[in-house]
Amino acid sequence: MTEPIREEDAPWARLASLLAIGEVTAVRDFLERLAPDEIARAITRLSGEHQQALMQLLQNAEAAELLEELPEAQAATMIEDLSAEDAAGIVGEMPGESQAELLREVGQEGTKAILQEMDAAVSDHIRERIEYEPESAGALMSERFLTFLEDESVGAALRDLEAHKERYADFHVQYLYVVGNRDDLRGVLRIRDLLLAPREQKLADLMIPDPVALSTGDGLEVVATMFERHPFLGLPVIDDDARLAGVVLRSAVQEARARRARKTFLKLSGIIGGDELRSLPLRSRSLRRLAFLCPNIALNLIAASVIALYQDTIQAVIALAVFLPIISDMSGCSGNQAVAVSIRELSLGLIQPREFWRVFVKEGAIGLINGTVVGLLLGLVAFLWQDNIVLGAVVGGALALNTLLSVVLGGLVPLFLKRCGADPALASAPILTTVTDMCGFFLVLNFASILLSRLT
Amino acid sequence: MTEPIREEDAPWARLASLLAIGEVTAVRDFLERLAPDEIARAITRLSGEHQQALMQLLQNAEAAELLEELPEAQAATMIEDLSAEDAAGIVGEMPGESQAELLREVGQEGTKAILQEMDAAVSDHIRERIEYEPESAGALMSERFLTFLEDESVGAALRDLEAHKERYADFHVQYLYVVGNRDDLRGVLRIRDLLLAPREQKLADLMIPDPVALSTGDGLEVVATMFERHPFLGLPVIDDDARLAGVVLRSAVQEARARRARKTFLKLSGIIGGDELRSLPLRSRSLRRLAFLCPNIALNLIAASVIALYQDTIQAVIALAVFLPIISDMSGCSGNQAVAVSIRELSLGLIQPREFWRVFVKEGAIGLINGTVVGLLLGLVAFLWQDNIVLGAVVGGALALNTLLSVVLGGLVPLFLKRCGADPALASAPILTTVTDMCGFFLVLNFASILLSRLT
Repeated sequence: MTEPIREEDAPWARLASLLAIGEVTAVRDFLERLAPDEIARAITRLSGEHQQALMQLLQNAEAAELLEELPEAQAATMIEDLSAEDAAGIVGEMPGESQAELLREVGQEGTKAILQEMDAAVSDHIRERIEYEPESAGALMSERFLTFLEDESVGAALRDLEAHKERYADFHVQYLYVVGNRDDLRGVLRIRDLLLAPREQKLADLMIPDPVALSTGDGLEVVATMFERHPFLGLPVIDDDARLAGVVLRSAVQEARARRARKTFLKLSGIIGGDELRSLPLRSRSLRRLAFLCPNIALNLIAASVIALYQDTIQAVIALAVFLPIISDMSGCSGNQAVAVSIRELSLGLIQPREFWRVFVKEGAIGLINGTVVGLLLGLVAFLWQDNIVLGAVVGGALALNTLLSVVLGGLVPLFLKRCGADPALASAPILTTVTDMCGFFLVLNFASILLSRLT
Repeated sequence: MTEPIREEDAPWARLASLLAIGEVTAVRDFLERLAPDEIARAITRLSGEHQQALMQLLQNAEAAELLEELPEAQAATMIEDLSAEDAAGIVGEMPGESQAELLREVGQEGTKAILQEMDAAVSDHIRERIEYEPESAGALMSERFLTFLEDESVGAALRDLEAHKERYADFHVQYLYVVGNRDDLRGVLRIRDLLLAPREQKLADLMIPDPVALSTGDGLEVVATMFERHPFLGLPVIDDDARLAGVVLRSAVQEARARRARKTFLKLSGIIGGDELRSLPLRSRSLRRLAFLCPNIALNLIAASVIALYQDTIQAVIALAVFLPIISDMSGCSGNQAVAVSIRELSLGLIQPREFWRVFVKEGAIGLINGTVVGLLLGLVAFLWQDNIVLGAVVGGALALNTLLSVVLGGLVPLFLKRCGADPALASAPILTTVTDMCGFFLVLNFASILLSRLT
């Protein structure tokens, strides 16, 4: 099954040998020929020393560009491995939104050291950006946008565009923004409207006045809704003093939503406290996983303590021990399906956290049907195996009831957590499995102890 | 906890009453004032009859626009509920990429009926689009793009743009495409390059010749890589005859990737065979969940059959029955963490399906550490509870070993499935839990039976 990669052929091996020689042009050429995912794969395979060597060999702007192509967790690790001075040089070359995102991942201490190496004006500005709520308009906005004063003419604007073509190449110039003297947003211009306008027309007469705008504090949901309502590729963001502070691009919103979905996926799988890649240090990978596993042992013990109360019943009907893990697993699966649908509907805005009743009814119906089906199936197996119809009824009935419970609970728990301001992705599964395990064990063992005389 | 919504205030209640009156202008005004997620929420809350009434009341183009704002599964259900003729009228107003996507969801029979109600030319074209591999460039591309012939002048192009301003408003006009006489792609023009060009210049001299282009058959990974390599907002797509067939927008690629991530999340949670929303019919919701639960019972029975082989051991040490579900659950959690990291790395392209060895080493290290930690913890609990150090060693040792196994296996299974062309999101968890349950039960019960004399 395992087919070892020929190490000498792998891109990272070649990159490592080029780094060993220290030939910057060769390294540059080599990276240029790789696709973005090959670059990421190659860099994550390098040793820590080679990663540092690469960062130091490249110019700061090149290193910054490279880091932006890597997953954030990886980029943060590489920045942490550099001296604060080297790191500051590279971070300084990034656009503002990437700086803040990366430094949030780096953590407070590292960030402080890096910011100390920068000019006060630059570091103050970065600090300001880091302070915006993650995923808010202020955090997502780009500062690479073009403004013109409202009394400028179309001709002057066109001449400015032409004169600064090079510098503007990286800018998002689907729209131009028209501002007043205090940088207060007055209107928006589409490039294509400039096309056919008379050169002497004032921008104030051509612009779309009072444009739709976001505030720096708007959260991702508000921002996403605005982009759903309006077809624009970018929306201007104004700060508390009504000044134009940045532009949020539709693509940045889509990326933020994808990032959030990814985090939800990882959290639901028990990876908490951040992204995990196999190239990260073993210690942090292990600790992040244990942070989920250790509380989980405690929850498991609580649930299993129910079994301990019924040892006599199990002693009398040892076959029950076979069905306990099955009931636990099946109820968990049914409940997790309902959790997934609730999380999905919450993220689509199709359901609001207060709509307990709707979820109760909808999941109750599924719970009754699916509980009956899986209960009958498992009950039948138990009956056929031990040739005891009461055992079949006990096992099947317990699974049926517990499925109903876990489906309803699975649907409700994410709503409840969301309403309490907690993260449904993080806590739903542990809460659900603990409760449904306890109830499942209780149901089957209690039924059995009541009907004990007919089971033995 | 449950706080029923005042039904009379809810937007869907008001929408329903407007529909009952049949006042199209009032309905239109009402929908206009709602945010997209409120619209989706309101529509999914309507009864089937009211949904149909709404579709029939609106003009086809309006209904088409409305359906595009709903989750696909919901839109498909609503189309299925209409007569084929009504459905054909509405589907006919959608852009090509949405038509194909929706009809794929509707299924073959319904699609056939709807296509029969359309002009042959239209239905042939839709059929062609449905036949593209889902998520390929041919499936994702928009057909709303602008072409000009290479010997046209800048002035003529500008006059055409101006003359058709209204019609082009919906088009994606960041780029103009320059074609030869056979619709063969020759070059790309950026709108802003037209800005300052002399009016009499030929497009052939201004365009960027031999532009980067996709082929209709390119899969999502290829398409995404192209967009990562190039900064463009859209890329042209050429068909097998080298003709310009469409334009894939960066936003369509981001959406397709988000959709794929969503499907992965749902599959991992045991919702298979498509999206689930609570507004869909009970029957299909129940069946889709049972499609996962029923095979899962069988897998659970296989795993639990190991316990049945050791009934005498459990009879002798009844405390073991308490630990069996814990070992099953804990091993499952550890394994799922590794599954999540593998799926994440595969989707980022950070790992290739053949790299078994790397995953084995990386996960083996985690498995050793985390297995030791959770094994010690659970062993300690077992020891303290029964005051029997051998029981502690049996339970803790089994969990430690099984954690190592499940972490390594959890990392490898997604690679193996991917390599076999199977879907890692769908099959990883059931395979993993079955194997690790069997091994976990075997380890703890086998250890116990060997050391039985010191446990009783």
